[in-house]
Amino acid sequence: MRLSILAVGLVCAVSSLRADEGMWTFDNLPVKKMQAKFGFAPDVKWLEHVRLAAIHFGGGSGSFISKDGLVLTNHHVGRGAVQRLSSKEHDYIKDGFVALTRDQELKVPGLTLRTLMAMENVTERVAKAVKPGTPEKEAAKHRKAALDALEGELEQKTGLVFEQVTLYQGGETWLYGYKVHRDVRLVMAPEGQVASFGGDPDNFTYPRHNLDFSMFRIYENGKPYHPEHFLRWSREGLKAGDLTFVIGHPGSTARLQTLAQMHYDRDFSLPLRIQAAERSRAILKEYAQRSPEHERQVKTMIYGVENGLKATKGYASGFKNPEAMAVIAKAEAELKAKVMQEPALSAEAGQSWARIEQAMKTQEGLSKEATILGSRGSATLGQALSLVRLVEQERKPNQERLPEYSEGSIQSLKNRLVGPGGPREGAFNPELELLQLTRGLEEALATLGAQHPFVMAVLGNQAPAEVAAAALAATRMQDPAARKLLLEGGKRAVDASQDPMVVLARKIEPMLLELRKQQDGIKAILDEHGARIAKARFAVYGKAMYPDATSSLRLTYGPVATYPANGTLIQPFTTFGGMYDRHVGWGGNEAKAENGAWALPQRWLDRKGSLNLDTPFCFSHAVDIIGGNSGSPVINTKGELVGLIFDGNIEMLPGRYFYDGTTNRGISVDARAILEAIVKIYDAQPIADEILGN
Amino acid sequence: MRLSILAVGLVCAVSSLRADEGMWTFDNLPVKKMQAKFGFAPDVKWLEHVRLAAIHFGGGSGSFISKDGLVLTNHHVGRGAVQRLSSKEHDYIKDGFVALTRDQELKVPGLTLRTLMAMENVTERVAKAVKPGTPEKEAAKHRKAALDALEGELEQKTGLVFEQVTLYQGGETWLYGYKVHRDVRLVMAPEGQVASFGGDPDNFTYPRHNLDFSMFRIYENGKPYHPEHFLRWSREGLKAGDLTFVIGHPGSTARLQTLAQMHYDRDFSLPLRIQAAERSRAILKEYAQRSPEHERQVKTMIYGVENGLKATKGYASGFKNPEAMAVIAKAEAELKAKVMQEPALSAEAGQSWARIEQAMKTQEGLSKEATILGSRGSATLGQALSLVRLVEQERKPNQERLPEYSEGSIQSLKNRLVGPGGPREGAFNPELELLQLTRGLEEALATLGAQHPFVMAVLGNQAPAEVAAAALAATRMQDPAARKLLLEGGKRAVDASQDPMVVLARKIEPMLLELRKQQDGIKAILDEHGARIAKARFAVYGKAMYPDATSSLRLTYGPVATYPANGTLIQPFTTFGGMYDRHVGWGGNEAKAENGAWALPQRWLDRKGSLNLDTPFCFSHAVDIIGGNSGSPVINTKGELVGLIFDGNIEMLPGRYFYDGTTNRGISVDARAILEAIVKIYDAQPIADEILGN
Repeated sequence: MRLSILAVGLVCAVSSLRADEGMWTFDNLPVKKMQAKFGFAPDVKWLEHVRLAAIHFGGGSGSFISKDGLVLTNHHVGRGAVQRLSSKEHDYIKDGFVALTRDQELKVPGLTLRTLMAMENVTERVAKAVKPGTPEKEAAKHRKAALDALEGELEQKTGLVFEQVTLYQGGETWLYGYKVHRDVRLVMAPEGQVASFGGDPDNFTYPRHNLDFSMFRIYENGKPYHPEHFLRWSREGLKAGDLTFVIGHPGSTARLQTLAQMHYDRDFSLPLRIQAAERSRAILKEYAQRSPEHERQVKTMIYGVENGLKATKGYASGFKNPEAMAVIAKAEAELKAKVMQEPALSAEAGQSWARIEQAMKTQEGLSKEATILGSRGSATLGQALSLVRLVEQERKPNQERLPEYSEGSIQSLKNRLVGPGGPREGAFNPELELLQLTRGLEEALATLGAQHPFVMAVLGNQAPAEVAAAALAATRMQDPAARKLLLEGGKRAVDASQDPMVVLARKIEPMLLELRKQQDGIKAILDEHGARIAKARFAVYGKAMYPDATSSLRLTYGPVATYPANGTLIQPFTTFGGMYDRHVGWGGNEAKAENGAWALPQRWLDRKGSLNLDTPFCFSHAVDIIGGNSGSPVINTKGELVGLIFDGNIEMLPGRYFYDGTTNRGISVDARAILEAIVKIYDAQPIADEILGN
Repeated sequence: MRLSILAVGLVCAVSSLRADEGMWTFDNLPVKKMQAKFGFAPDVKWLEHVRLAAIHFGGGSGSFISKDGLVLTNHHVGRGAVQRLSSKEHDYIKDGFVALTRDQELKVPGLTLRTLMAMENVTERVAKAVKPGTPEKEAAKHRKAALDALEGELEQKTGLVFEQVTLYQGGETWLYGYKVHRDVRLVMAPEGQVASFGGDPDNFTYPRHNLDFSMFRIYENGKPYHPEHFLRWSREGLKAGDLTFVIGHPGSTARLQTLAQMHYDRDFSLPLRIQAAERSRAILKEYAQRSPEHERQVKTMIYGVENGLKATKGYASGFKNPEAMAVIAKAEAELKAKVMQEPALSAEAGQSWARIEQAMKTQEGLSKEATILGSRGSATLGQALSLVRLVEQERKPNQERLPEYSEGSIQSLKNRLVGPGGPREGAFNPELELLQLTRGLEEALATLGAQHPFVMAVLGNQAPAEVAAAALAATRMQDPAARKLLLEGGKRAVDASQDPMVVLARKIEPMLLELRKQQDGIKAILDEHGARIAKARFAVYGKAMYPDATSSLRLTYGPVATYPANGTLIQPFTTFGGMYDRHVGWGGNEAKAENGAWALPQRWLDRKGSLNLDTPFCFSHAVDIIGGNSGSPVINTKGELVGLIFDGNIEMLPGRYFYDGTTNRGISVDARAILEAIVKIYDAQPIADEILGN
């Protein structure tokens, strides 16, 4: 196994990095390395072009692909919008959607997209706000205040909306300025079944056959928006070995954490998340077994839990790689040794690893309560807790509130509280909630013991099933009107409420606040000392490195490539023919194998004969991506669009902690497949003409 | 993971075996279990029908599929025959072969096939030949003599050719009587490229797309042979969940071994095999790097080594399954405890585990020498060693010889010795041999040390490269005429020879004989005590179990089924469409990816349009197979042919030690694919008519 890890990369940065890992910021690309290895490196113009063609699409990514503001992203990124536009009469998830003319395009209520226009490094200016020797928690407050002030200044000056971006665990602080687009209309979406062909089993795997794209258009003043930059559709297409670039918004990695933090993830954070998800799944399955109708109600929820479980187990699997873990440990030991040798560095960061380790020990002590204390799976108790906290926070002066309850944010929290609320499905389900709360309280009792203040406060002398049944029978927290009444009545009304969920919430809230206070203290230590270590690392190794993913715009690059798996080597491309192979191999639509995961819409069966089955459909490439990159454009050296990231292989998941260039792959839809389907399946020649610039 | 193991099966035999594991003999099928689970169990007539339609095809399996003696097996089983019939003008491996009329069929020189006609359990009769208390090595001799006598009797009585079959590590001894067919002609073989599509990377994996079949016809007295039983070609085809039966000749498993034997395999036997194969590969690759022509010469040898390496690593991977190993250990402990409780059993087998463990300890001590002592990769030294041993053995009375040099066998050894000989490629290659012998002697020196008698005898004071170069420059052992001269001169001529390889062989032979003597002693202990444990197991659990594979005819059964792998669930069937998907996905014939592993013959590209791409091509089913099952017919409940075993998935390999029903799968060509190709690609309607009985 060839194994490459960020930390190693750093250690041998002077010689040569072994794999093309890295989620690079646009100000700090390894251009020399790229040039040496691929004979190509993007110049300033190329970079500006692709950056200004990039779109931040909710939790995912997207790009401009026409002069008339057409935006390409994944189907699963645009799915929420497609869902919102659907009705009983028009199920666009099931049937797909195509607007052949502008007036058929459907405006998506509430959807806003963003383009990154400006990036300002404010590290030094923020650092000046803190005097040396300030305790960690105090320092955090000063920094926050300084940063908020800078953000306000910039917003006023530019008219852009700014976002605070922390890189290198606090080693750098930036303000990113976005142009925000608020008129976004749906142009086309294939059937959900083709977009997510293979369903939950195929999620995070390859070979894949997913037409996972959707298209939107940005409007300005009622007219299509004309972006300065958009990606032209490649007419050449890719082959194995070709260099690809991916720009997008990877959500979160944890590669620059200290070993103590990784060990906490390995021994506490991930196992607890896995345990919680398995518990949720067991409850949902218990519910599903009651009848086919019960099963139907929770099917999507079970899929959601299983999706998260697959990802979390994938992250955790990296820790079973002893080679990788040894490399990480060695890199930390080497950096630490170098810091200790240099008096100035040692004074600044010499104690930071120990401080973080100490903080993680404290975190360990809190982990059980952090898992258990809360609404215990009850949506109505969740609403009551929000209510209790909201009215209490609102009474305080702005600077004493929890940051998310600041003057600027509190209104949207209020709006959310008086909305329909409830669990993921958008509706309260009393039978499911009774089961979840009962099992949730049973778990609290079993985990914390009968004498724990939380258990005593919630259960008293009663059994979990009794408490749950009584509270759910009498609460009105499922009713937006009831919540609105209390909210408007403020703290006095909430304090006087006899609603059993509000009564419970009042008892729980002080414990939650105390827990939060302790956790905030830990976070301040991690921020402070993470930043100190990052700065020490810059001093020792320079800045030939990339920061952990933070949902900010990044560039990663690498060739279309096979990888070893399943006892063989995996094909770099799949084709439409492979999709039909799997469809038939699973028995076709009649077999309904695995809940119809490999079923196909009738249109795709009827039109099979007109498709070129050899059209490249998806491909695997050695790019360094993670959740949040969904919808990222894949770009060739000419700056043209050749594909669309929609997933990684199962071997990508340990990438949360380290990058293994042998097996970690991004998975993309080939631009040729999108074009072929637009023309041959969806008869949408006008869209093809637009993206081809005809 | 659902995990089922023979040993567990035994422990809970009274309740129910959890998976359909088992390579069952025809006299002892789990019919009740089959009936209960699948609503079907074969009756005596069904079993006789399929057994008499089965063919033992060299190291593999086959079956009669027409009334005119047409035989179906894998391409890779018939490959040697196809190769032998090829010439410079006609490369039937590359181009395939089809005989549309009887007179176009090509007789395969030397190929004999066998049908199992009679099975005689002689356990009791053989046991009587040994008096209680006879030492192990002595007992082995008595048994051998008794068995040889019985075999002679039966052959005389029936005219069949008998084979000695040991089952349950010696728990049962049988004589199997075969009808031998000596006139076998090639009828059809597809192009090797389609038969082994995916090449070495795809070997032992699934999903697969291999048209791995070939057809032969048995003649008798110059006319097509009319077998009493042949398998009819199913007109219905399979679907997921359908029950399948596989009859064939699984070569070797080691599931009934004691834990001590498994640990020896885990800690010595397999690691040493892996190390030796990796060494061979390194030498071949060193040679290949000298020029493209060098590379061409050893390409097939490298593939061969890699194939073995993949298999051996697969076997070894089972030992990394702690759950499986715990189950095996528990089963042994339980059996041992039960034996100890029963005085009669305890007297018979109570010490047997300890005796075997002791024997394995002795084996450990020999393992290094057993690996190193020998021809050290030199084909000419190998020939000299054969010569020296042959003339020495021939002088001894029959009963004092090593068994393989008995009067009945010695002539074929002589014939082989004066044939062309040499390494696998059929020709001596002096440059490769020099490299192999040099590296081989270097390894001997490094492993055994300069003072070891073998090293001193072979190297004296010289360096490995010197010894190898000098011996190879002067030897004539590559010349069949030179070997013939010495063979005919007998021991006197061999003793007088100054050929440097013969000189070396004379020094080495006594050490090899001494090693062999010690190994035979170990084998006698394993045979004796393996049999005692087997009999004790019968006494405790009854005979609701199957013996380890021994290349004798077996039946296994299970449904067409998916399995979890690569992060998802694997499709039960593949189609022709999937083959083209992989071909194109790897870049087609132009890309020559992985030495053209996924290339296709031009005919298959030209005729793609006439094929039904949805035709099921290969499928995965939960049958318990291992190497030797290649070419086994897959049969439905009606006794009809529905497919052809050609491989297992990578998860099948730990099946050498235990069966995991969750993931262990046999991989077969679907009978529908064979028919479709015969008609649409090979225009061989007469063959289609014959197998369909039209």
